[in-house]
Amino acid sequence: MSSSIKSAGVITCKAAVAWGPGQPLVLEEVEVDPPKVSEIRVKVACTSLCRSDLTQWQSQAQPDLFPRIFGHEASGIVESVGEGVTEFKEGDHVLTVFIGECQSCKHCTSGKSNMCQKLGLERRGVMHSDQKTRFRVKGTPVYHYCAVSSFSEYTVVHSGCAVKISPSVRMDRACLLSCGVAAGIGAAWNVADISKGSTVVIFGLGTVGLSVAQAAKSRGASRIIGVDINPEKYEKGKAFGVTEYINPDECTEPIQQVIRQITDGGADYSFECVGDTSIVSTALQSCCDGWGMTVTLGVPKTNPVVSTHYAFLLMGRTLKGSLFGGWKPKSELPSLVDKYVKGEIQLDELVTHDITMQIKQVMPVSNLDFEVIAAFHSGLSSAKIFEIMYENTASELPVD
Amino acid sequence: MSSSIKSAGVITCKAAVAWGPGQPLVLEEVEVDPPKVSEIRVKVACTSLCRSDLTQWQSQAQPDLFPRIFGHEASGIVESVGEGVTEFKEGDHVLTVFIGECQSCKHCTSGKSNMCQKLGLERRGVMHSDQKTRFRVKGTPVYHYCAVSSFSEYTVVHSGCAVKISPSVRMDRACLLSCGVAAGIGAAWNVADISKGSTVVIFGLGTVGLSVAQAAKSRGASRIIGVDINPEKYEKGKAFGVTEYINPDECTEPIQQVIRQITDGGADYSFECVGDTSIVSTALQSCCDGWGMTVTLGVPKTNPVVSTHYAFLLMGRTLKGSLFGGWKPKSELPSLVDKYVKGEIQLDELVTHDITMQIKQVMPVSNLDFEVIAAFHSGLSSAKIFEIMYENTASELPVD
Repeated sequence: MSSSIKSAGVITCKAAVAWGPGQPLVLEEVEVDPPKVSEIRVKVACTSLCRSDLTQWQSQAQPDLFPRIFGHEASGIVESVGEGVTEFKEGDHVLTVFIGECQSCKHCTSGKSNMCQKLGLERRGVMHSDQKTRFRVKGTPVYHYCAVSSFSEYTVVHSGCAVKISPSVRMDRACLLSCGVAAGIGAAWNVADISKGSTVVIFGLGTVGLSVAQAAKSRGASRIIGVDINPEKYEKGKAFGVTEYINPDECTEPIQQVIRQITDGGADYSFECVGDTSIVSTALQSCCDGWGMTVTLGVPKTNPVVSTHYAFLLMGRTLKGSLFGGWKPKSELPSLVDKYVKGEIQLDELVTHDITMQIKQVMPVSNLDFEVIAAFHSGLSSAKIFEIMYENTASELPVD
Repeated sequence: MSSSIKSAGVITCKAAVAWGPGQPLVLEEVEVDPPKVSEIRVKVACTSLCRSDLTQWQSQAQPDLFPRIFGHEASGIVESVGEGVTEFKEGDHVLTVFIGECQSCKHCTSGKSNMCQKLGLERRGVMHSDQKTRFRVKGTPVYHYCAVSSFSEYTVVHSGCAVKISPSVRMDRACLLSCGVAAGIGAAWNVADISKGSTVVIFGLGTVGLSVAQAAKSRGASRIIGVDINPEKYEKGKAFGVTEYINPDECTEPIQQVIRQITDGGADYSFECVGDTSIVSTALQSCCDGWGMTVTLGVPKTNPVVSTHYAFLLMGRTLKGSLFGGWKPKSELPSLVDKYVKGEIQLDELVTHDITMQIKQVMPVSNLDFEVIAAFHSGLSSAKIFEIMYENTASELPVD
């Protein structure tokens, strides 16, 4: 444990810092400010890796938001609380969430939205309250990511962006619920509201897609068709309820035609879980006229524009999106944690690698004493993601 | 009355025939075959003009489907019935519908779709049953439009594409329910399911848009914001429930920004009733995060591709489309006719011109003894539409 608490409550600890878009993360000594009003400082226990961390790290769109600390799917223990915080105390176990819930704005009180107007998705790399950072490295402010920044031993989050969990819940599994798994399950339950006996098509069998699958299964979907270019995903998918598998690379016709043929005109629901806007229209064409619904969950890596022929809509289809599966994080995430504890939600099976951050790097090698849960995501294995994020470390990582 | 019934049941009558895309309609003597199995032949009483008639007439996409008879919003009287027809008899008053209801297919029996698999939207200019036409002009087959072709004194439709109405209902008003008005009302009631107190934005205050407005008003929407480049539409709109009017041409900021400002983040519902795919994204941006819903009703005149930034969906918006407002025509249209009779739906106020087809033309002038109800549609006045469709007749038509 290399961290230390200095005067004025500043903690010095290790964090994986990105110095520029796509540049290898470097373990740095960072200073973490004490929590301000309504904030808490959290000792990160475990953080899983989301494709969005990688997407944003690779993106050239905000080069001025570096150095930056990524990571947003985390579990941890409250180290200290800021002024006005009554909900949390030191030692509480928490999950961080990348969209918060102030519980008082128009959206939080609407009963139909999780798009909190006060603690919504933070895109400028700062804290919601004062538009400043709580990290410094070598005297330079370090930007946050999604107001979480969990690739650090300690981080500061708004108390509205944390959810208390029981100390008996496995930290190294529950963290998966703070983004990907909840997004997939919520898309199936809250957004699509999948009905019994229905046919579901899932594009991309990563953590998000498999979470859609398990949620569709629990709703009694009769057919759950997984689409992925990696054939190994079918075996994995079966454990989550996938009943059929299609590899687009092995199809001689466009995948939407194949799906319409085997489903008598199209599925009831389709889900875009790849993060490729071009697949949204494919997904829309894969569901049926009249009541077919496509839910898009992915954050695209490149082209941000969703395009489709108007006729697919005119024939009665619905295209919806959601962030975090429509869950109100503070009000509703605890119920998902409960379901995991009761065995009603599978998390363990999603984890492909448990990795402790021991990375050879430009700076002297140090250990970070938190673990990275490498949930596998569509297309790239987590190991591959780490290969990309940590240059020159491939040989130290398990290879899929 | 120039029509006559020849041997073998063929009727010779007048019809407005388009000989090519965008070419002036010409009143021709046409032969109308007797109805085949499950079909009925209808003496057209009144036919209103839909923007889709004009759009399809102008379109260069299907040049081989000419000569063609357009028109699909019609009322009439059953002249004869084909084999197997028990629902209708000679003398019944009917509305034609451009999508039918077989009442036995997967969609018709689903309880959640009006996309009949047997009598759905016909796009090849022929009858559903045998892929042939029932019209000839000078020995040449004349293509149908939407399996209705009501710009003729007589037409043949499938019995599943007609709805019986009481003889006491005004023919020259009820015909508006066979497309545009029903589409607008259904979009508001069936598709969006507008809730009391909500804020609604309507792009395009033609027949469809005004029908959305009256339906929104009846649901208790608190704000109904009409957007149209024709300022005269505001006065008209008030009679249908429009509470506010915005002319995009008079805005210094993008219309979606203006709407988001005056609605605290966006409307609950927005409707694209212009038939311009570029407005779909504008409409989507005009409704709010979390639960905002856009319904697209228009058939685009040019670019058929709907495009939008994925983030508008990710933030919880829904994009839906519908044909004929989601109404099952045979099962549900009668209830709309009832509502008109009871004064619960406004139709009379939508009619801007009652025009009898007396058009100077290349062929010797004849009268068609049916009326054209020129419901005004967004952008173009009906008079202007007739100017376009009937070349050299502008001086005979009322001018807006």
